[in-house]
Amino acid sequence: MKDYIIKDAWQIIEDEFRPAYQEISESLFSIGNGRMGQRANFEEDYSGKSLQGSYLAGVYYPDKTRVGWWKNGYPEYFAKVINSVNWIGVHVLIDGERLDLAKVKVDRFERVLDMKNGQLIRIFEAEMENGARIEVKSIRMCHLFLSETASLHYQIKALNRDIDISLSSYLDGNVLNRDSNYDEKFWDYEGHELGGNFQHLTMRTKKTGFLVRTDLASKFEYQGKAINKKKKIDAVAKVGEKINQHVVKDATLSLVKYVAIHSSTNHSETDLESLGIERLSWLFEKDFSVLMKMQEDAWSKIWEDADIEIEGDVSAQQAIRFNIFQLYQTYTGEDARLNIGPKGFTGEKYGGVTYWDTEAYCLPFYMATKGEDVAKNLLIYRYHHLEKAIENAEKLGFKNGAALYPMVTINGEECHNEWEITFEEIHRNGAIAFAIFNYIRYTDDVGYLASHGLEVLIGIARFWAQRINWSEDKKVFVMLGVTGPNEYENNVNNNWYTNTMASWCLEYTLESLHIVQDHAPEKFHEIFKKLKLKDAELEEWKSIIEKMYYPYDAKRKVFLQQDGFLDKELIPVTELDPKERPLNQKWSWDRILRSCYIKQADVLQGLYFLEDRYDLETIKRNYAFYEPLTVHESSLSPCVHAIIAAKIGNPEKAYEFYLRTARLDLDDYNNDTEDGLHITSMAGTWMSIVEGFAGMRVKKGMLSFQPFIPKNWKRFSFHIQFREVHLKITVTQGNFEVQNKSGKEINIIFNGDVINIAPQQLTKQRT
Amino acid sequence: MKDYIIKDAWQIIEDEFRPAYQEISESLFSIGNGRMGQRANFEEDYSGKSLQGSYLAGVYYPDKTRVGWWKNGYPEYFAKVINSVNWIGVHVLIDGERLDLAKVKVDRFERVLDMKNGQLIRIFEAEMENGARIEVKSIRMCHLFLSETASLHYQIKALNRDIDISLSSYLDGNVLNRDSNYDEKFWDYEGHELGGNFQHLTMRTKKTGFLVRTDLASKFEYQGKAINKKKKIDAVAKVGEKINQHVVKDATLSLVKYVAIHSSTNHSETDLESLGIERLSWLFEKDFSVLMKMQEDAWSKIWEDADIEIEGDVSAQQAIRFNIFQLYQTYTGEDARLNIGPKGFTGEKYGGVTYWDTEAYCLPFYMATKGEDVAKNLLIYRYHHLEKAIENAEKLGFKNGAALYPMVTINGEECHNEWEITFEEIHRNGAIAFAIFNYIRYTDDVGYLASHGLEVLIGIARFWAQRINWSEDKKVFVMLGVTGPNEYENNVNNNWYTNTMASWCLEYTLESLHIVQDHAPEKFHEIFKKLKLKDAELEEWKSIIEKMYYPYDAKRKVFLQQDGFLDKELIPVTELDPKERPLNQKWSWDRILRSCYIKQADVLQGLYFLEDRYDLETIKRNYAFYEPLTVHESSLSPCVHAIIAAKIGNPEKAYEFYLRTARLDLDDYNNDTEDGLHITSMAGTWMSIVEGFAGMRVKKGMLSFQPFIPKNWKRFSFHIQFREVHLKITVTQGNFEVQNKSGKEINIIFNGDVINIAPQQLTKQRT
Repeated sequence: MKDYIIKDAWQIIEDEFRPAYQEISESLFSIGNGRMGQRANFEEDYSGKSLQGSYLAGVYYPDKTRVGWWKNGYPEYFAKVINSVNWIGVHVLIDGERLDLAKVKVDRFERVLDMKNGQLIRIFEAEMENGARIEVKSIRMCHLFLSETASLHYQIKALNRDIDISLSSYLDGNVLNRDSNYDEKFWDYEGHELGGNFQHLTMRTKKTGFLVRTDLASKFEYQGKAINKKKKIDAVAKVGEKINQHVVKDATLSLVKYVAIHSSTNHSETDLESLGIERLSWLFEKDFSVLMKMQEDAWSKIWEDADIEIEGDVSAQQAIRFNIFQLYQTYTGEDARLNIGPKGFTGEKYGGVTYWDTEAYCLPFYMATKGEDVAKNLLIYRYHHLEKAIENAEKLGFKNGAALYPMVTINGEECHNEWEITFEEIHRNGAIAFAIFNYIRYTDDVGYLASHGLEVLIGIARFWAQRINWSEDKKVFVMLGVTGPNEYENNVNNNWYTNTMASWCLEYTLESLHIVQDHAPEKFHEIFKKLKLKDAELEEWKSIIEKMYYPYDAKRKVFLQQDGFLDKELIPVTELDPKERPLNQKWSWDRILRSCYIKQADVLQGLYFLEDRYDLETIKRNYAFYEPLTVHESSLSPCVHAIIAAKIGNPEKAYEFYLRTARLDLDDYNNDTEDGLHITSMAGTWMSIVEGFAGMRVKKGMLSFQPFIPKNWKRFSFHIQFREVHLKITVTQGNFEVQNKSGKEINIIFNGDVINIAPQQLTKQRT
Repeated sequence: MKDYIIKDAWQIIEDEFRPAYQEISESLFSIGNGRMGQRANFEEDYSGKSLQGSYLAGVYYPDKTRVGWWKNGYPEYFAKVINSVNWIGVHVLIDGERLDLAKVKVDRFERVLDMKNGQLIRIFEAEMENGARIEVKSIRMCHLFLSETASLHYQIKALNRDIDISLSSYLDGNVLNRDSNYDEKFWDYEGHELGGNFQHLTMRTKKTGFLVRTDLASKFEYQGKAINKKKKIDAVAKVGEKINQHVVKDATLSLVKYVAIHSSTNHSETDLESLGIERLSWLFEKDFSVLMKMQEDAWSKIWEDADIEIEGDVSAQQAIRFNIFQLYQTYTGEDARLNIGPKGFTGEKYGGVTYWDTEAYCLPFYMATKGEDVAKNLLIYRYHHLEKAIENAEKLGFKNGAALYPMVTINGEECHNEWEITFEEIHRNGAIAFAIFNYIRYTDDVGYLASHGLEVLIGIARFWAQRINWSEDKKVFVMLGVTGPNEYENNVNNNWYTNTMASWCLEYTLESLHIVQDHAPEKFHEIFKKLKLKDAELEEWKSIIEKMYYPYDAKRKVFLQQDGFLDKELIPVTELDPKERPLNQKWSWDRILRSCYIKQADVLQGLYFLEDRYDLETIKRNYAFYEPLTVHESSLSPCVHAIIAAKIGNPEKAYEFYLRTARLDLDDYNNDTEDGLHITSMAGTWMSIVEGFAGMRVKKGMLSFQPFIPKNWKRFSFHIQFREVHLKITVTQGNFEVQNKSGKEINIIFNGDVINIAPQQLTKQRT
């Protein structure tokens, strides 16, 4: 664990230059706008440890998978959203000496991520080897108000003497991925132009052929006056402008870089030029301060609906805002083709592609803070991939429209490296179905079932019906050879979670068929015919539901994670030597596999999703059995445990898990923040507060709350958009307050009782 | 399946040029001498499909493993015996046109592998584009009489007109492996010399640093006269000599290449030069016909003790000789540092390194045909690796001298790519212990236990004792997370074979302790002390033996391959659509894993090894249950099934399996002969005859036979060295004959009765 980030309600602050932590800070101070993202690499040259990262949503490379022995059915490639053109770069020479923080003396250094305003600010003082002392201040933004553009302001002040500065502002297409299976280059140079005030550089991704055009304009100013004597930079896949300026002591040289990045993922190739020039012109007219104001306004709109305030615990306050801020930097929900990579745009790991994290963890956050259209876009993403999911299942021997969604995808195709994940972690299909259920439960948008959801559900149901088999021995339906959410198991039989979700999917699909039959009979008949459904098939599903096998320990009255779980040595995590932790760094894989230790909620994930089906005692017993065996070595683990602990009346544990999820990256809990941030688990942090502390659920079409507040907090509040109302919920030590910000009344359930919340009113309840 | 090899008792013959089958023939016609091996690549340039392969035993490269996501405990490298300097090469220009069979018209083509004499012969006639017609004849040998040398004879005859021939004889170090995980070069150039009649080229392997010096002398002759006007070839890592000769119609130009290859794996680096020159000089004095004679003599000594004759079935005769021939080309048993790679020196697959195949399949063959010293060398190979096996176990968390032998190794270190294999296929430990038992049962060399065997057994026993765990649920010892010999399962619990062998290992180790205590009490105490054995540890082993769990189906009265096996859909292989076969090419990996289909003997492997422990009815029941579920997609599968089928009185099945194992490569049964030959399974072919048809076992210190003969055979005979006698056994339709070739009488068991075999006598029994 690390503890170098200064605590502040709205800012992430680093107050010292720590070269050893540079890659961690590069992740933490990342900026983005849902369409692009940028690690907090320095603008000027830096020869120290650094992971360069500039990412464009949807611009990926299908890197050839790296496996030992090929297994039939393997994906051919591992898709990764790749490091793209470097648009932040400047070269600085002070009296001929290159500015490189790894080589000069850094006297003062401050880096601030202003989450309220979506800006990254850096100030430092440095002494060059030649004795010149300078102060540099930079501010940069990925514009939330115009998502394919960005800008930065870079100022150099002469502190101790007159100096000659050479300052270059450039775009550079000569970028590499650190994560490249065969050390390939992912980009081809396509073209550039240097005319007038604007330069552009166009690159094309290999294999996928995405065309990315970046337009740059640079405004250099000295003593308040534009510098017009500029040289063009014209190198291989590198363009820009360069000036030389004599700067007197105490004077400041400044540069504003205006950047527009357009790619053929969003526009036709022929439009890229006009779009680039048009938008860059629009930007170029504006002072940087104007752009800052626009950015602040855009972010304030997000915060208005998404902020969580915590009084009495600045560390928790900073953490939850950091989580919310990064989620919105990653995904804003406007484009149903986009999704949420586990590390967003903050690193290369997991390739910026889509996992089940989206449905299992992120959906509720966006649904409540951004509204149902955004949530629906996340569902439609999978709807668009249905055909590919059917193809994917066919490759594995399934037929008749059975759909297996990929564990990892960018375009609907499975693209993971590991057979354990692609072939066996089929439970993702359950989460994708559950997201449909969850969305409709929350929004009451039954129409979605008819228009999109039902077809997805039928594909998934067909998969499960073919994936199980009849055990002549047990006289039940079993599911062999799976991996559950707990990836510290592999190829197990009858994973309780997967069996349960499979059976639930069949039930919900049958139920959905009835709903669509009632609400949209024509659509129902159309789908029935199109998908060649037969009554016999539905009967078969019913029979599977009836005779599905769920491993169970009658002695302890707990569900068994899988067949044979009780053959393991059941030694609680607390009895492990701390030196052996984390297991995934200390133990060999075989030892982990045969141990009882659980990476993340597995049985408990099922109890979390399907909570209504189980009584409190059952949940308590299972929690008591499994949590002590859980090492939480997945970022997705603590949040689910926080929610369940809250549910079963264990607020201390709930708070402990909350801390672990909330500051996972800020405190570098898993020692891997340098790879990028755990974006999808950040939605779990939000859930820990809303579903955990506030105990929010949807019951009988109403929001239900059962709140508690951690001891050391004075107050916490959050916003919920639900159907047509917008509520601000505040929990204090003693009170539960609901501010109805909309013009519509609503009934909610508070600690089991239905209460009416009048429009535009504040309603208080004693807790 | 392919059927292009002409059937002949002593030769493998191809009578037509088939470019499409070139790589298959390159494997089939491979030559070797246990120290080096050479695929049947053409001497002259060939631009068609070809896998170049020239291998030196022990000269390997630790290729960086290629994995998707690293798992803790993974081996860092995958060792492979690599393609080495090309010593066979010649360049031929006919009137300035390059001879390349892919580009000229081939009129006649014959390739013969003379197994009796260890020679590869090729004759062809070709018409050049320029109209010149030539006949080429080449003969080559890896000398069995002097294993670090080789020679070849290459003749060109002008058939239709006078021609000018340019003929180059060279060594080339610019070789690549096709199998290279990251397309690296494995060799560095080290030096060369061109002086006098001898040239040498010295190369060094990267990483491992093996120095390999190749010495070459070339004799060119025309019309019976030496050609002395030679030019030197001096290119990058390429040396040799070149002549130009006007050849009149019907005349022949000939070349003999004498080659010595010495490496620092066998000699000190400073000795390589003198050895090379000395041995090359010795060769150079000799006519090629003299070398051929020496080669024939050396091979005739092998055949004298190892030949199997089959009368009445030339196809079977050819096949068994091919199997025996290739085994001896791969391993002759003189060097305890060497072992038997699954593909010997005939291809790159499996990297020419050691698997459990050696102990499970190859040991009995060498023991009976080459004698106990050779068998002992195979055991000592593992004895030398004991320390590494203990280190390997330590890396995985085991302690106190527990030894886990690698699944794949060249130097004692685990070096496989796949975690399923390295971490889970731990049954190899059992085979290594069983080989010790098997050797001592056969040789009665109890002294070996004290001098070497016991320490290996104790290391293995300690591993098993730590690898099992107590199941509080079942109240037995269980073994979780293994893969048995059937690699179509992964990470299963309580694989019957592994549990059984583990428990057997503990028993045999305890028994061996007693034997050593009796026979060599001092050594016993020394080992007891050195290994810090405690009585409590031995008591623990006893308790494990007593309370080990063996999955069993009480209804069918069969052992269960693993926990949960009966949950699978048990559909016999015969009911599968043939289009779905082989499964490993048609089905996705997950589907194979959860299916009931068995790649190779698993439960049956245990019944084969420990046959004496089970009654015939038990073996029959298990065979009847498992064989119909077995797809035999491992080359090691049919032989074990042939032996068991013979044992339980099913000669038709035994013969069917024999055919499948015997002609596996000759008929390219698995469509993979182009990768190299299945060398280790060839020992299984020998066992199919000796242990299958002849029913040979060792019982109470005697050889026991229970023979039958396939219907279409007239006679088969084989040789057995057993303790101090040498028997030739002949089985005919009706008779069983034993020729005692030694001066010592012996008792054998024939169909259950003990009979005496007098020295130097032929004894006949009616069958």
